[in-house]
Amino acid sequence: MPELRKDPIIGRWVIISTERGKRPSSFRSPGKKPADGFCPLCPGNEDKTPPEVFAYRPPGSHPDTPGWSLRVVPNKFPALRIEGELDRRAEGIYDKMNGIGAHEVIIESPGHNDTLATISPSHLANVLLTYSSRINDLYKDRRFKFISVFRNQGEAAGASLAHPHSQIIALPIVPKRLMEEIEGAENHFHHKERCIYCDIIRQEREQGTRIISENRDFLSLAPFASRFPFETWILPRQHSSSFEEISEHLYGSLAEIFSETVRRLTATLEDPPYNIMLHTSPLGDKINDHYHWHFEIFPRLTRVAGFEWGSGFYINPTAPEEAAQFLREASLTPPLP
Amino acid sequence: MPELRKDPIIGRWVIISTERGKRPSSFRSPGKKPADGFCPLCPGNEDKTPPEVFAYRPPGSHPDTPGWSLRVVPNKFPALRIEGELDRRAEGIYDKMNGIGAHEVIIESPGHNDTLATISPSHLANVLLTYSSRINDLYKDRRFKFISVFRNQGEAAGASLAHPHSQIIALPIVPKRLMEEIEGAENHFHHKERCIYCDIIRQEREQGTRIISENRDFLSLAPFASRFPFETWILPRQHSSSFEEISEHLYGSLAEIFSETVRRLTATLEDPPYNIMLHTSPLGDKINDHYHWHFEIFPRLTRVAGFEWGSGFYINPTAPEEAAQFLREASLTPPLP
Repeated sequence: MPELRKDPIIGRWVIISTERGKRPSSFRSPGKKPADGFCPLCPGNEDKTPPEVFAYRPPGSHPDTPGWSLRVVPNKFPALRIEGELDRRAEGIYDKMNGIGAHEVIIESPGHNDTLATISPSHLANVLLTYSSRINDLYKDRRFKFISVFRNQGEAAGASLAHPHSQIIALPIVPKRLMEEIEGAENHFHHKERCIYCDIIRQEREQGTRIISENRDFLSLAPFASRFPFETWILPRQHSSSFEEISEHLYGSLAEIFSETVRRLTATLEDPPYNIMLHTSPLGDKINDHYHWHFEIFPRLTRVAGFEWGSGFYINPTAPEEAAQFLREASLTPPLP
Repeated sequence: MPELRKDPIIGRWVIISTERGKRPSSFRSPGKKPADGFCPLCPGNEDKTPPEVFAYRPPGSHPDTPGWSLRVVPNKFPALRIEGELDRRAEGIYDKMNGIGAHEVIIESPGHNDTLATISPSHLANVLLTYSSRINDLYKDRRFKFISVFRNQGEAAGASLAHPHSQIIALPIVPKRLMEEIEGAENHFHHKERCIYCDIIRQEREQGTRIISENRDFLSLAPFASRFPFETWILPRQHSSSFEEISEHLYGSLAEIFSETVRRLTATLEDPPYNIMLHTSPLGDKINDHYHWHFEIFPRLTRVAGFEWGSGFYINPTAPEEAAQFLREASLTPPLP
């Protein structure tokens, strides 16, 4: 059973995933891959994943058979387990609980070599709709306090399978970074009665130098205090506290800017590894005036070294204004239909 | 001029190092090395570094000539600049200041292939003494609030030069991670009138399962809520808030446990890449009852993926109890004399 443990000094929870039980020898050859190029996420191999919990597939076709254009399956090697009680308890001065949670994989396309930059915006809208639908479904389990949606592109960004996929982890706690953002936003609202992200969007649209792309409903920008070169955020222009609560008509518009932003990053940085993470309000406070949902994208271009790890203090060698300009000026191939 | 910028939501400062000015193309071939194997830190190449600010060298020998056993030089490509005023100012809702600071390199040994695992404990004691001496010297500049000492071992851990070296960055602010630890420790002291690290050490010595090594003055352990496999901390057994204030007689004892711990990691994980960072009280509150200085060592065995970046929530596949047992049972070669 995996375990959730709390750092007693700064209150950070970690997952100790003992079932994955990595011994020293297993770290020595991390690059080993099946030589035959077998992919458990490709069409025809549906029996190699746990049974699907959701799919886009032709009417009448059977679950766990080919024909789908998108599939959601439980992760075969989950970081947390769905079965059991939370069982919060102490170990002397320490706090821990059972590693209860859900871990799902969203297989975004049947095409093994697809990426977010190659799939059509209309298909990407379905991927985003699936995020919402899985989040709302998982929140029916009242043990979960936060549903984390993220995506790793490329081996250097931690993707262990090349086939295009996102992941969802349902957590019994709210992660520290999210709590910090929410507290910071609450604090700003307390003083100004304005959402801090709305203030940022207003200033960024006035200054213009860090804006990457914009349409009627959304924009993407390089944040003022970017930790990493080419760090990019995608935000709704109007205040909105929860991604999974937006109107259905916005998904097409979000998919457009998402696709365009990823294609700009791909063109400028020649298909970089990257991570994407959805930041949205946790359960219990989904509709509020202070927090503003958004996606954060981190191209993995630099190695994070000891200084960054130890201090939480980042050295970014590319000014966000320069990054935004490179991205705005990228020559884009038109999106697929 | 590099710039320090503050994230307006969570208050994290970052260095935007515009002078390093990395363009998209410079990320495409990050692995390029000088083909001739030239090392600017090796003896004989003293004129390839800025002039030394400190050295262990035979009496009568000249600065910036061979013969030294340890050298400290300014970083040729500093992340922050020593010249100028702090000049804190606003840009609309954002806060920033000039990137004032110091960035030094401690060349730990003349031996190009040495590591912390191969140098003798008595030489390592000199390295640790040099940390203290440089920290105390840099604090004479009252623009600095925190001196960060860290070390990257191996290219995968961010070391751009193979020659054994540590780095020191003097900062005009206290990094976020340190502030969080100090606030957590203050909070614990407020409730219990005890240092939380002293409480941890007491419980760890009773339980024993996460202790790696111990002598009269220091111990090393795998922390209860380890973020990474084989994460290791080295702490003084008696309460002590500032590394740079310890008695001179303790350096030998610290070097012993430091050397042994690194040799245990090296033997168990076959020379892994790792990062080390010193955590010590900031200027202005160096002697206190709540904070407890320590070194944190992170072997870089797993890739940190999107979930970790986005959430600050780590998945650790090796339980710290298992890691500590592997490290305790490592067969060690005896240290050099």
